[in-house]
Amino acid sequence: MTHGGDIDGERLWASLMAMAAIGATPAGGVRRPALSDEDRRARDLLVRWLEEAGCAVRVDDLGNIYGRRPGADPGAPPVVVGSHLDTVPTGGKFDGALGVVAAVEVVRALNDANQRTRHPLEVVNWTNEEGARFAPAMLASGVVCGQFTREDAYAARDSDGRGFGEELQRIGYRGEAAHRLGAAAAYLELHVEQGPVLERAGAQIGVVEGVEGISWNHVEITGAAAHAGPTPIGDRRDALVAAARIIVALRALADASPGVRTTVGHIDVSPNTINVIPGSVRLTADLRARAPDALDRAAGGLAEACAAAARAERVEVQVTEFWRSPPTPFASAVIEAVAAAAHTRGFATRRLWAGAGHDAKYMAERYPAGMIFVPSAGGISHNEREWTAPEDCTRGAAVLLDAVRRLARPA
Amino acid sequence: MTHGGDIDGERLWASLMAMAAIGATPAGGVRRPALSDEDRRARDLLVRWLEEAGCAVRVDDLGNIYGRRPGADPGAPPVVVGSHLDTVPTGGKFDGALGVVAAVEVVRALNDANQRTRHPLEVVNWTNEEGARFAPAMLASGVVCGQFTREDAYAARDSDGRGFGEELQRIGYRGEAAHRLGAAAAYLELHVEQGPVLERAGAQIGVVEGVEGISWNHVEITGAAAHAGPTPIGDRRDALVAAARIIVALRALADASPGVRTTVGHIDVSPNTINVIPGSVRLTADLRARAPDALDRAAGGLAEACAAAARAERVEVQVTEFWRSPPTPFASAVIEAVAAAAHTRGFATRRLWAGAGHDAKYMAERYPAGMIFVPSAGGISHNEREWTAPEDCTRGAAVLLDAVRRLARPA
Repeated sequence: MTHGGDIDGERLWASLMAMAAIGATPAGGVRRPALSDEDRRARDLLVRWLEEAGCAVRVDDLGNIYGRRPGADPGAPPVVVGSHLDTVPTGGKFDGALGVVAAVEVVRALNDANQRTRHPLEVVNWTNEEGARFAPAMLASGVVCGQFTREDAYAARDSDGRGFGEELQRIGYRGEAAHRLGAAAAYLELHVEQGPVLERAGAQIGVVEGVEGISWNHVEITGAAAHAGPTPIGDRRDALVAAARIIVALRALADASPGVRTTVGHIDVSPNTINVIPGSVRLTADLRARAPDALDRAAGGLAEACAAAARAERVEVQVTEFWRSPPTPFASAVIEAVAAAAHTRGFATRRLWAGAGHDAKYMAERYPAGMIFVPSAGGISHNEREWTAPEDCTRGAAVLLDAVRRLARPA
Repeated sequence: MTHGGDIDGERLWASLMAMAAIGATPAGGVRRPALSDEDRRARDLLVRWLEEAGCAVRVDDLGNIYGRRPGADPGAPPVVVGSHLDTVPTGGKFDGALGVVAAVEVVRALNDANQRTRHPLEVVNWTNEEGARFAPAMLASGVVCGQFTREDAYAARDSDGRGFGEELQRIGYRGEAAHRLGAAAAYLELHVEQGPVLERAGAQIGVVEGVEGISWNHVEITGAAAHAGPTPIGDRRDALVAAARIIVALRALADASPGVRTTVGHIDVSPNTINVIPGSVRLTADLRARAPDALDRAAGGLAEACAAAARAERVEVQVTEFWRSPPTPFASAVIEAVAAAAHTRGFATRRLWAGAGHDAKYMAERYPAGMIFVPSAGGISHNEREWTAPEDCTRGAAVLLDAVRRLARPA
């Protein structure tokens, strides 16, 4: 498998860099918002590559692009591989693009080997994964998988008021509903880890076992604004001290609960003046866990932390969970195909769960799905400094190729 | 002392309400920024009252207004009484105005009694006490007491870029440097407490023993922004968790140190996004204490809390004290004159320290000075709902009258 018909690391890297040139930023990153002109140029390049590789290309009504390599059994559902080409406003070269470019490289490698598979292979580029331009994230895979309607997607507007539907039309990628993904034997996505776990563990390949559940909460704290000078400590109802107690308690909750992560990323304080005791605070709590009961326990811990802070500071605290995405385990057949592929190649692996959202999450609710992670240098992502070394990209694509061979079966 | 020649509570209240009509807000508060047209009208009314009461009025180069009632000994330095007529943008009827209007009432009461004093009496209205329009606060008393230069004051600009000097000229209250306060036998200021201590204690009069010291600090915390999903807890350098530890530790410091108060009133978080670990936080720490060594200990406690949070979260924390105002004890002769006056009247008193800044602070660094507090309902101040009952205003003015009589000596 290391001779003709294997991943060509140089070709993969050259394609990845060609893609990264579209929307390239001076600092080495990529700015390629969904349905922008840059996204159109990236799509055009992908379509050319797919056609050059002999794939039949179709576009669905969400702008998702599919490139189909036929299988020996015309009635067998396809094995689907891909990711997304859109980026956050100051993103990197790897997040999303690696999974799409590597899927093209898998087709090229199979072509080089003249290898037929029983199942057809479909390369996919999902529209608007990031959600940075049109909320929510994973909008188009969400429609395909029944999470949202097409009307939801078309009604989404960017911060300038431009609609998803109009922009899709404008860049020429509004296709047919009949072109959407139908049945599928499996879905597999190669992606950069976006975290430091693989690098720190010295692992080359992450075998992803699922996507963690997320609970997003608003916490509203109402105390009493008062002058910082004349108000004795015992008379205070300081909303920011209450918030600080909640933040510290949430960290302690994560420390005491393996597999649970808690983050307070956003806080608004009123009146936010040096010599006024804060009268109200609004903060967010992001809770993540892999087991549904662990996510429930984390939500319970948040409620307890809020109640304790309310008592300690004599403030009112209201918690509202405004979004919950349950943990999604991947299909064991796909996980084991990835693990076996990596093992056969002799790569150092580590099993882990995805902490961020991916199209694979929605796909997993409808199809047998899985993911392969490769290391992110320093765990940095959504950043122009995002970096995954060429040899890591090659290893990831090789595992993708071999896992696809296992899942799509020899003809 | 309760018959002719005493404070006329109805006259005092009527004058206070007449003053409150200038810049009155629909919600019952007062908007009278320093050197605004409303401030000019308030000054014009004060000047008319002073002249009607037989005072010689002069204005200095900072716009401070003095109304002098002659004493029997023309060479004796005056006893000075007053406060300020400017307000915060949505202030109340009492903060500042009570002290000025009550000083006028003291002159009227002495006139009613045909009572001469050995020392002259000077009513003063200080320009720009609040600092809400022109920073810093207590700007004009600060120049008179040698804390700032006139050039500092004239260079101060409001948020629209208009200068203190120009605005002083525009409203017609730019007087002569030679008119500044010279020698003074004592300074006494009646003010609302702006806190809940008197009301809670059931005290009618606060005998103020000094103005607490204040230390204002910027704390800058630098961690590492990262995705809340894929970043394990142990890899985080969360600037907001570090900030929360500092806020909780500062509260514990105040709880453990009688007479010390700590407030974090302002916090800025970056990037302040629900699913991103905060990379940097800027917060303020307001420390107050009555003893210089207690203020030093509080500053030391802040430094320790920051160092501990830096270690715990592996972040960098930099503390910068950008302003310190040392504790200022009032003159015992003035304190005792106030206490004796309240005692003779049979009022319930409580000794306390001013937690907020007042013109009396700068005056105390140059002259024997003191303050009288009356209760603020609910401790509410700098607020349109600020309220002090008419009988409390009358009691405060009565103590002011009697203390002035003691300090200015019978002729």
